Amino acid sequence: MTEPTPPSATGRGRGRGLFIAVEGGDGAGKSTQSARLGQWLQAQGYAVLHTREPGGTALGRTLRELVLHGEDGSVSPRAEALIFAADRAQHVATVVRPALERGEVVITDRYLDSSVAYQGAARALGHEEVRELSLWATQGLLPDLTVLLDVSAERGRARRGRVHDRLEREADDFHDRVRQGFLDLAARAPERYLVLDAHEDAGRLAEQVRERLAPLLKGVR
Amino acid sequence: MTEPTPPSATGRGRGRGLFIAVEGGDGAGKSTQSARLGQWLQAQGYAVLHTREPGGTALGRTLRELVLHGEDGSVSPRAEALIFAADRAQHVATVVRPALERGEVVITDRYLDSSVAYQGAARALGHEEVRELSLWATQGLLPDLTVLLDVSAERGRARRGRVHDRLEREADDFHDRVRQGFLDLAARAPERYLVLDAHEDAGRLAEQVRERLAPLLKGVR
Repeated sequence: MTEPTPPSATGRGRGRGLFIAVEGGDGAGKSTQSARLGQWLQAQGYAVLHTREPGGTALGRTLRELVLHGEDGSVSPRAEALIFAADRAQHVATVVRPALERGEVVITDRYLDSSVAYQGAARALGHEEVRELSLWATQGLLPDLTVLLDVSAERGRARRGRVHDRLEREADDFHDRVRQGFLDLAARAPERYLVLDAHEDAGRLAEQVRERLAPLLKGVR
Repeated sequence: MTEPTPPSATGRGRGRGLFIAVEGGDGAGKSTQSARLGQWLQAQGYAVLHTREPGGTALGRTLRELVLHGEDGSVSPRAEALIFAADRAQHVATVVRPALERGEVVITDRYLDSSVAYQGAARALGHEEVRELSLWATQGLLPDLTVLLDVSAERGRARRGRVHDRLEREADDFHDRVRQGFLDLAARAPERYLVLDAHEDAGRLAEQVRERLAPLLKGVR
């Protein structure tokens, strides 16, 4: 198993900027938190690029459509993983790295951890091989900080209502595995993660993100 | 460096069929030879599936179009490699393996070696990493026999005429690197290759392919 790269050496050709990923299950409030953070950073005078995966480039949007509405009916698990990795490769090469090299703060809604958590939860592929594929795609670019908005399984269930048939239990299990996938990644490299309870007040969450980010911002520009 | 898998264990979940790849540079006569071989095998009573890469599936054809006419203008080298690998993953999972499991003889125009030779010749990526990516995409499925139709650089030049400007020399160099990439792969596992001089008479080439194939056919059905 490859150990996580330390923050000081997250990938080749790294610029002067700062790279932040916001991760978590569906409905965790990622876009709210990343938008708030982006606004705050801009008010502080930083150049900010707010982007997303999948679909952060025109090529990526087409690839994403292909996976969701493939002409073949079904896309094989490895083809799907490779298509998401291609989306990420293009996003990093043409959007993220150029912005980091310009000294900007890049905030992405979802990155490598989402691939590992979701594709791993689907069980066709192992967490480690999905991670290795993404690292190859990005030439090892890891975020300086990943904000994980952790959504408890209980809350997820409550949101989906009271129907508890077989499909609903399968959805619960999948959700549990996705959540655990995210938490496992955070536990492997706690110095690069901020794990927050997504059910807290949005303003309080934003505050915690800013506090955690403050020391990292000193190195930018 | 990972050593090539021996023919007896070319990938997981391998069926009773036989897997043949026809490789070589542009204009080597691959489609002629694979069509002749397919016709001969059918006449012998074998079930034959003749396919191709890239674009052996509907998904693959869309992916190929994306690389050739990407909306973004340029596709980054890693994104391109991952898209070709996705095409191969889908082709192997939905076309090649099912046919092998049915006991058919599968003939593909181009396979893994073309990715290694062309992407390696473009120099943005190493031969070995392109090969590893394809092996992951296909769960290690290697052909029982690869027929390499070797086109000499001299012949390639002759076909392109006498213009010898800078672009023409670059094209020559690229052609030389592609050719060498194919030959290097064949040299690594000669027991799985038949290397032929593509400039020989097509009938004589077809005969050599049939001779080399005869012992392998004994295990089919």
